[in-house]
Order: sequence, then structure tokens, then C-alpha cells
Amino acid sequence: MSETMLAVVKPEAAPGADVRQMPVPQIGPDDVLVKVKVASVCGTDLHIYNWDQWAQSRVKPPLIPGHEFCGHVVAVGKNVTAVKEGDFVSAEMHVACGKCYQCRTGEAHICQHVKIIGVDSNGAFAEFVKIPESNIWKIDPGIPPDYASVLDPLGNAVHTTLAGEIAAKTVAVIGCGPIGLFCIAVARACGASEVFELAAQMKADHVLNPVTDNVYEQVMAATGGIGVDVILEMSGHPDAIRLGFKILRLGGRASLLGIPSKPMELNLADDIIFKGAIVQGINGRLMYQTWYQMNALLKAGKLDIAPVITDRMAMTDFSKGMDRLKSGEASKILLYPNGIEKN
Amino acid sequence: MSETMLAVVKPEAAPGADVRQMPVPQIGPDDVLVKVKVASVCGTDLHIYNWDQWAQSRVKPPLIPGHEFCGHVVAVGKNVTAVKEGDFVSAEMHVACGKCYQCRTGEAHICQHVKIIGVDSNGAFAEFVKIPESNIWKIDPGIPPDYASVLDPLGNAVHTTLAGEIAAKTVAVIGCGPIGLFCIAVARACGASEVFELAAQMKADHVLNPVTDNVYEQVMAATGGIGVDVILEMSGHPDAIRLGFKILRLGGRASLLGIPSKPMELNLADDIIFKGAIVQGINGRLMYQTWYQMNALLKAGKLDIAPVITDRMAMTDFSKGMDRLKSGEASKILLYPNGIEKN
Amino acid sequence: MSETMLAVVKPEAAPGADVRQMPVPQIGPDDVLVKVKVASVCGTDLHIYNWDQWAQSRVKPPLIPGHEFCGHVVAVGKNVTAVKEGDFVSAEMHVACGKCYQCRTGEAHICQHVKIIGVDSNGAFAEFVKIPESNIWKIDPGIPPDYASVLDPLGNAVHTTLAGEIAAKTVAVIGCGPIGLFCIAVARACGASEVFELAAQMKADHVLNPVTDNVYEQVMAATGGIGVDVILEMSGHPDAIRLGFKILRLGGRASLLGIPSKPMELNLADDIIFKGAIVQGINGRLMYQTWYQMNALLKAGKLDIAPVITDRMAMTDFSKGMDRLKSGEASKILLYPNGIEKN
Amino acid sequence: MSETMLAVVKPEAAPGADVRQMPVPQIGPDDVLVKVKVASVCGTDLHIYNWDQWAQSRVKPPLIPGHEFCGHVVAVGKNVTAVKEGDFVSAEMHVACGKCYQCRTGEAHICQHVKIIGVDSNGAFAEFVKIPESNIWKIDPGIPPDYASVLDPLGNAVHTTLAGEIAAKTVAVIGCGPIGLFCIAVARACGASEVFELAAQMKADHVLNPVTDNVYEQVMAATGGIGVDVILEMSGHPDAIRLGFKILRLGGRASLLGIPSKPMELNLADDIIFKGAIVQGINGRLMYQTWYQMNALLKAGKLDIAPVITDRMAMTDFSKGMDRLKSGEASKILLYPNGIEKN
Repeated sequence: MSETMLAVVKPEAAPGADVRQMPVPQIGPDDVLVKVKVASVCGTDLHIYNWDQWAQSRVKPPLIPGHEFCGHVVAVGKNVTAVKEGDFVSAEMHVACGKCYQCRTGEAHICQHVKIIGVDSNGAFAEFVKIPESNIWKIDPGIPPDYASVLDPLGNAVHTTLAGEIAAKTVAVIGCGPIGLFCIAVARACGASEVFELAAQMKADHVLNPVTDNVYEQVMAATGGIGVDVILEMSGHPDAIRLGFKILRLGGRASLLGIPSKPMELNLADDIIFKGAIVQGINGRLMYQTWYQMNALLKAGKLDIAPVITDRMAMTDFSKGMDRLKSGEASKILLYPNGIEKN
Repeated sequence: MSETMLAVVKPEAAPGADVRQMPVPQIGPDDVLVKVKVASVCGTDLHIYNWDQWAQSRVKPPLIPGHEFCGHVVAVGKNVTAVKEGDFVSAEMHVACGKCYQCRTGEAHICQHVKIIGVDSNGAFAEFVKIPESNIWKIDPGIPPDYASVLDPLGNAVHTTLAGEIAAKTVAVIGCGPIGLFCIAVARACGASEVFELAAQMKADHVLNPVTDNVYEQVMAATGGIGVDVILEMSGHPDAIRLGFKILRLGGRASLLGIPSKPMELNLADDIIFKGAIVQGINGRLMYQTWYQMNALLKAGKLDIAPVITDRMAMTDFSKGMDRLKSGEASKILLYPNGIEKN
Repeated sequence: MSETMLAVVKPEAAPGADVRQMPVPQIGPDDVLVKVKVASVCGTDLHIYNWDQWAQSRVKPPLIPGHEFCGHVVAVGKNVTAVKEGDFVSAEMHVACGKCYQCRTGEAHICQHVKIIGVDSNGAFAEFVKIPESNIWKIDPGIPPDYASVLDPLGNAVHTTLAGEIAAKTVAVIGCGPIGLFCIAVARACGASEVFELAAQMKADHVLNPVTDNVYEQVMAATGGIGVDVILEMSGHPDAIRLGFKILRLGGRASLLGIPSKPMELNLADDIIFKGAIVQGINGRLMYQTWYQMNALLKAGKLDIAPVITDRMAMTDFSKGMDRLKSGEASKILLYPNGIEKN
Repeated sequence: MSETMLAVVKPEAAPGADVRQMPVPQIGPDDVLVKVKVASVCGTDLHIYNWDQWAQSRVKPPLIPGHEFCGHVVAVGKNVTAVKEGDFVSAEMHVACGKCYQCRTGEAHICQHVKIIGVDSNGAFAEFVKIPESNIWKIDPGIPPDYASVLDPLGNAVHTTLAGEIAAKTVAVIGCGPIGLFCIAVARACGASEVFELAAQMKADHVLNPVTDNVYEQVMAATGGIGVDVILEMSGHPDAIRLGFKILRLGGRASLLGIPSKPMELNLADDIIFKGAIVQGINGRLMYQTWYQMNALLKAGKLDIAPVITDRMAMTDFSKGMDRLKSGEASKILLYPNGIEKN
């Protein structure tokens, strides 16, 4: 194996990124080395590329970003038993400490000392990526290979949607990025009776544009004046969040994943307390309950998420991908570090 | 309105039933009188017809049986406000006392003093039936009229299936009567990833015959040696129940609705305790959470239950229907007390 | 029985209240007439007395306020079966419609059309009060009679505290009015391992004053840097609410009952979403699960709530009571409409 | 350190045990070596000593039994970071594989490949015991040292009792061995309103002897004819289990830990299905939620379990201890491998 590889690199504390040669990662006794087949791009990667306030506070260059991928195992450390060379895999990129209160009580997804591969250490926008065995997820052969690189954001959607009852419920999905679109697919597959999409695209039963439509009146009319049972908030926009709470029924569930950029005003009295609402902060994916759920739904052919994948390009075109994300023309972009022709 | 009506009557403590004229029920201030459009036949009605041990201990003739129906409201008592003449309705036939511990804590479906219309008082195998306002369920216009008379057993299935997580779960439905078949439809609509049917018919992913197939080996092979996440037990057969526990995974859910006819032997150590299983006794339908769930699923077009309805006949052919049930040729039979041509 | 009775009356849309003769309520067929032994004063009564913005928008004078009481039944309507003359009772004063989605699915405490006796119709600051049979709660003879008039606010505390796991949990109670003090008693009785009181009084393990203490540092030090498992928010103060979220551990529960007077700023990203917190809006008391829980805890002698009761006075001293509440000298005041000597 | 140590040994496939010199365990890079201060005796140890059917099928001599203990760390492997020499510790003796479905979804306590130290490999009836770092539990200094060796069975009790709601509930504990007695302590500490003990001893509110008392009538009388909310079954005796189900209320919870020695007859229809009961198979302790709960309750001084500890003796008196267990004279026996005087 060569000692260097091509990778996207944030070289210094400034906007932009390079595509250049970097050393192939050295694996330890509990690690797995994966040759990346596809890596997909998340909004987080755009934050790092743009070097916004959050990125400045969190990321320490030089860094190879990228935390959504699939590929084949090319080497394993000497203690590794559950994975072997040739396995087709993805991975949970939140590496939990395993020793804090949350990790020891089934909540590793909110580990006190979590490190994210691709944010806190070198990630998957490269020909090879190093992953601890514990975090490897083997891809079921029954799953469309195209979907194998987007399990991380699909997992966000599965975790959010299934964080409470969804069967026979009316649901509003707020925000139309890839995770919101995945939520719609998951909600429908799991028996949601009506899905309202507050944004655009895909195949919700009702698509409402908060700018031009009177969302509150339309949702109330469609739900017999009761409001929706569940809101799945993916936008992080204060106005959308407030609107979400308005259309939530008495006793409904609000699952929040989208991140507002700063503190925001909320009417706790009317929108949560008198309403008897349940509000859930949602972070990452359950380790590894969500992965099993995803696997089961994909394998059963219950999720059609193909429309979310809008772009496929060689990893060397990374900057072009960033431009298409910024402009809103792309939704989910797949990058091919080892050549798009190998797909 | 005429003072008498045609009805199926169990006239005395003996097998059989008559179809003859009976007085039209008198309604009180909180009651609703419904002209029955369709009444469907339950296994319980066969028990009453056959006058088996259970029937002898519970039923006090003369009685008009029948607890699955739909029809139009023709009169309401003076205190009734939520229902009016002309409404197309069905009803929850378990009449709860409203005053016991269970009723006052959200568990009216296991009321200490429950009375069942069609078992403890005159039911729906008649041109007219009297129902308390509190128990009336208005049929959403979006629901196929054919389904409106089977909401009672469909509710059993919805209650059982949704009594725990079902999305992305593997499920074995045991017993192939109408409720078992409904369970399969509900599980699939609500995201179950694989449905095993231990019996016959319909559209589960795997149909296994406990007599001729090695069910244990096949289920284990199909679930990667883990077993199923959920068993929905509708048969009441001791062998089937024991088999169900064998194929249940460690930590799985067993929801039991089928009624064994007498005490039976169970391996509590291996099948429940070491297994860390959750076993739920299931009775009736949640009042009225289950009804709202059913309504939502049916209205959304998520349940195709048409294949379960095998027979349609005039109520005067009641004894013929009993024969077809006994022989196993019929699954769900719809009776038309006011003339089949009026459907 | 006399046709008139002494009562506290808000005569018109202005601050203040009179104590004067009013007609004894006429009961209907489903009602119960209670001779009030003790009525206790809630913060809501002070809002009505002061005629603040909320009171102006909700209350329609003339009104007899008062929604916390106990007394003996002196007459029952002809349909009443569960209560009889002479019974010692209190009541749930939220009268639910019984017909909306929430009422029919076990959530009557957030009924869409709830009316509150003592706010929307004449209440218990009077010699007699009229209550629907469905809302009457019979007092177990094993319960200290002194506690029988404070079951409404104690129920708020029981509902809030038991809205999630509490045994073996660390808990911060925010706000030191009667309900907060009740929460401390309930949490300790139900196995909370440490109770932090953010305010004053009573018997929490740690009493912290947000003004003078560094609450965040002290709570973190006392919880090994993890934060508390549960916050029970009774204050409605924006600063206290924000502080509560800061000291909540990753994955913790925030149960909010205190009502902020207007929309407030909240850091959803750090305090709820990344934290994976569960936030519950709490309203009223579960009908009637909470009442059974209260009854069981009181009867078992597990709650010492006597210190919360600071004042006892004849109902004719109502204005004096209002003054003591305003000054903060009183916590829970018991009024005696039929003479304090009769206690 | 000496190369040998004194230990209780089951030398061959036959009844009895020796106390003799054995090699001190060699630790690997992820292990911890503990000098045992106290080891307590479980009923399982008596099964192994007696060499009954279960022992014959599971245990492979030679074996050092013992799975309840506390002691000080004397050496750690090179990868160990969370524990250091001198720490006072106990341990979860169920060693989960970490890689099966149950382990990866928060249910390691029912791991498919669990191994128990003291049953499947050498245990704690010895001067030294080897434990993987992941399974070590550090003892909080606020916990009575006497209790540190009984955390394993206390954990069974905490897991069983807190497997559902317990605050304000009526509870019947069936079986009076140490775990049953611990359950009583835990239930009372966590707000159970009444505890019925079906056996003997300790401090339940009601102690009933199934042989001489009419338990059913007494429990029904004491619960207003409703039955108990919860049964905690620790006996494994078929008659006791059946009695437990009889006294369980409609909709109640039955948590089963006691192991019947063979399949038994149960009335599923009346005792589970019509009753709408929830039955939970309970196994081990949650890893490590239960340990945190135990720690919190003990540290807060909420559990008085001292009466359960009846005997203290040098480890060399092991056979004498077995005799006292067999005769029923002893409940929980503490053994001192390194000398009773060092306590």
C-alpha cells in the first residue's frame, strides 16, 4: 500500500480547503482501515469549509473532514474480531468514551467526552479512513449500495422520527434539507397517517411554504382543528420553530434536531406548558439501536431516499460541490475519493 | 317506526339461535338508536351459538348477540350532543362503568365492571341496536364503508400490534383468524421490517405451517439466529403459544390476545425470565386511543383488509354463516339485517 | 337549608373582592352540593384579586373564586351514585368536556374545552359549592384532615414530580411557593437521592439562593460534574428557568409547571438539543391517576407537608390573607367559610 | 506478591468443595486484580456446592465460585485507565460480549454470550480475583462498607423493583430470601405505599404466610378489592407464582426473577390476558444503570439492608456456611478470605 493518499484538507484556520496528498492513517490494535468508496457531504462540512464561528471554535487544522462514507476494509488491528478484510462497511463517527455516566447507561450518543471523526480527527474525505472496530457498521448486502454512504444523516432522521410514537400520527416535518427529507420517508414507512412538509420537495402529503401559505390555518383545517401530533424540527430557524409549536396539538411531541445559531425567544407558557407538550432534544443517533432500525427498514425496501441524492462527483471536485451546496442547487452530494468510475 | 324488528335471538340455554321478531329497543336520555347496515360475525358469536362452556357461564338468554356493526343513527336521547340523526356510526361495545380505579386512570378497556353489548345485553344482529352516546364512534367519510362493521376486531389488532414498538421490528403473528390477518396488515403499515405468519393466507413475508415446517429453525435462520422482536399471539393454542416464546428474541415482546381454553404449561424460566421478555395481556381496545389510530390508518389508505372479508349474506342466513365459520371456509362474514341489497 | 350563604365575591372588573351574601347554588341531576369546611388560597386567587392582565382576559365577574377545598356533601342530584350525603370530599376543579380528542385518549387534564370551577364559574370561597359528581374525590379517612383542602396544588406537585423517573435521581426544585415545597416532599418520599432547592425553606438536602450563591458551581460540585437528573420548575422566572437548564445533565428531564409571564429567550442549542434533554410541559393533574397517587402517598404517611400551611383564618378575613400573600409572609393559607371553630 | 492464594474450590464433578491453595490469577492488559475483603454467598453457590442438575449442566470443575464481593485493587493491566491501585471496588460479574445485538442496543444484561465470573470462570471465594476493567464498580466512600459485598443481589432487587412504576403503588414481594428482603427495602425507599410480604421477616407493612393465611382474601381486603399494583416474584415456586397472579390487579405489573425448576401450569386467560397484565422477565442487573441507582440510594442512606446480613465467617469455614444456608438459619453470609479480623 502506498504511504500517501489523496484527501480534502482544511490546511489552516481560514476559509477554503485543499485537495492534496496526505499520509495514509496508521492503525492501532483496535482499529480498522477502510478504503473509502463514497463519502457524502453534510452541512457541517460546509461550516468547516466556510470557517464560520462554530468551526473556528471547534476545529483544529490541519484536518481531513468528512463523516459520512462507505468502503471496504483493507486492514484490521490485531485485537479486531468482528470485522475482516474485504467487509463492506460504514461507521458511526461519534466516538464515545465508554466510561462516563451517559456511556454506561445506554446514552453513548450524548457521551460527555465524545469525539467526532471528521471534525475532531481526520475523516473520510480521503482515499482511506481509520475507524475503531467498535464503531464499524457492516452493510447488509440487501441494502442499495447508493445508500451506504448516507447512513449517518439517515440515522439522524430515524432517531428523530422514532423517538416517540409515529404510527397513526399526523406529523409536520420542518426544514427541507436531506435530514428533513429522510424524516418524511421514515415517517411514512412507519405508519404516520399524514405528513406535512413545511418547506418544499419530495412526497409529503401536504407541502406548505411558510412564506406564502398560511401554514397555521391550513394545518388546523387538515387536522380537524386539533393540530399535528408530532413535529420533527430540522431547520434550526427561530420562526420555523415557533411556527412548529403553534401547530402542535395539546399533548403533542416536538423533536428538535435543527440547531438555532443563537438563543431565541419562545413562548413557554402557551407553546409548551399549558399545551402539555413533550419536547425532545435530539443528538446524533442511538448507538447502535438506530443503526439496527435503519438496516431493517432499508433491507425491507421501505425507504425510497434516492431523490435526496442530487450530485455525484470525484473528490477532486470538492470546491465545486461546496458551491452547489451554498447555492442551494444540491441536496446530498456523493464524493468518490478513489475515482467515480469505480462505483 | 315499527315497534318490532327482525333479530337473531339465542332464545334459551341451548345450542342454536332463531331469527325472529323482537321489540325495537327503547332508548334512554343518554342513548342512541342505530339502524344496523352491516353486522359482522365474531368467533365469540359462534361460542354463543354452540353454547359452549364459556357461553353457558356468561350469557343469560334470551339475548340478541352481535357486537360488530355499522349503521345510521335514527334517534337520540335528550341529553345526547355529540351525535345526531343520520350520522353513520359504529361503536365500542365494551361499556365501562366509568367509576372504578381502571376507568378513572385511563384503562377503561379493563374496567372491573365492564358489560359487553351483544354478550351481556342485546346486540347488533338486529335491524336496530341501542348504544350509549359515550360509546358511539362516528365513521370518517374517508373510510371504505365495507370496513365500518369490522372496527371492533380491527381494533383488537391495532391495540395488540401498537402495544409496543413495531417500526423496524421483526414480527411473528400467530393464528390466522381475522384478527391475526388484521395484525399482519397493521404491522406492515407501521413499519415492521419482516412479518412471519404462523398459519396460512394473506401477505406476510414468510408463511409457516407449524405442523409441516420446522418453524423454529426457519425463523432463526431468517433473523440471523436472534429470533423475532415481537410475537402477536392470536391463536390461544398452547402449542402455538409455546412455539411463539421459543422464537422470541432475548428482550422481545410477546403480546397475547388469543385465549387458551384452560390453564397450560409454560417454561417461565427459559421463555420469559432468562430471556428478559416482556409479556402483555391484551384485552379489547383502548378507549378510545385505538379508535383514533384505526381511523387515521384507514383514512390514510394504509390498511388493505379486504381479503379478510370472505362472505356477505342476509341476516336471515345466520345459521348458514355459522356453518361456514365452523367448517373454516369463511373468515369474516358480513350480515345485512336490513337487506343485503341496501348496501 | 338557607337560600343564601356567605361568599368571597369579585363583584366587578376591578381590583379587590367583597365578602357578602350570595345565593346557595342549585344542583342539577349529576351534581353534588358540598358544605365547605376549609378552602385554601392559591396564587391564582391573588391574580384575580389584583385583577392583573391574565385575570382581565379570563375572568367574568361577578365570580366566587376558590378552587382548593374540602367539605361534607349535603345534597346530591338524582343521577348521582358514587357519592352520598355526609361524605367528606374534595374535588378536581378542572371540568373536562369528555368529548374532545384529549378527553377520549386519557389526557383530560389538557382538555380542549376545560372549565375551571372558581375561575370560569363560582368556586369554593363560600359556605357551599356545587361540583359535578364525576369530579368529586372522596377523602380517605386515613388522611390528615388538614391536608384535605390542599390536594389541588399537592396534585400539581405529584403530577410534575412523577412525570418521569424520580427514584435514585438527583433533583433540583426551582421556586419555593407551596407547589415547589410539595415537590420536595414528594421527590424525597419517592426515592430521589438528592434534592436541591433553588430558593429557600423546608428540607431539601441543599438550599441554594440564586442571587447570592453560585448555583451552577455548587450543583456541579455536588453531582460529580454531571448535573442533576431532573429539574422541577415551579417559579416561572426566566432567569431561574435558564439556570435550571444549565444545571441539567445531558439526557436529563425538565418538567415545567411555573408560567413565565411572557415569551422568554432560551438557548435551545446548548440547553435542549445538544444536551438531549426531555422537556415536559405540565398542566393540572392527571384525571384521576394523580389523585390516586396522592391518596396512596398521604395514607401511607409518606408526605409531611404541614410546614407549608402557614395561616388559618376565617373566610371573612380574606383581604387580610391577600395582604399576607402579597408580602410573602404567608405560604399556604387555609380559609374557614363556615367558622374556624368548627375545624 | 505470593504466587498462590487460599481459595474455595469445586475440584471435580461431585458434591462438596475444598478450601486450598490455588495460583493467584494472571491479569491481562485490560484486567484488574482485586484483593478480596469480603465475599458473600448466593443461593447459586449452594447449587454448585450441592452439585444439582443445573450445576452439572453449567459448571466445569475445577472452579473457584463466588460472584459477590468487594476489595482493594492491587494491580492493573497496562490499558486500564479508570481504576488504580488502592481503589475500593466491587464488580458486575456478568461479562457481556459487547458485540451482539443485545449488547449494542443497551441490553448487555441479556447478552447472547454472557459469561459469569464465579460460574463460568474463577470467582471471588479467594484471596484474589481477576476482573475486566469494564466490569469494575468503584465503591462510593459514602456507602457502608458492610454493604459493598452484596451489591450483586441488591442490584437484582433494584432492577426488579424499578423495572416499572413503584411510587404510590401497592406491592407484593413473594419470597423471603435476601433478594426479596432487599426488594422490600427498595420499594419502601422509592415510595411504594404498601408492601405485602408473602413469606416472613423484615419490615413489610403486611406479612402473610401462604400456608396459614388466606392471602388472597387479606390482600383483597387491604386493597379495597382491587389487588396489588405490582408483584415482585423472587421465590420461583409455582404455587407462589400462581398466587401472585391472583392478587395482581387488572392492568398490574408482574416482575419475575425467581426461577421455577421446571415448566409449570399457568392460567394465561384469567391471570394475564383478560387481566391486561404486564409480565416482565428479569435477569441480572442493568449494566450499569442499576449500579448507579444502587449507589445513589445507598449513598443517600435510603436503604437499611443490615438485617439481611446474618452471618460473618472466615472463608475457611465455607462448609459450615453451606450448612447454615441449607438449614435456613442463615440469610446472607459474608466470607472473609483474607481474615475476618481485617474487616
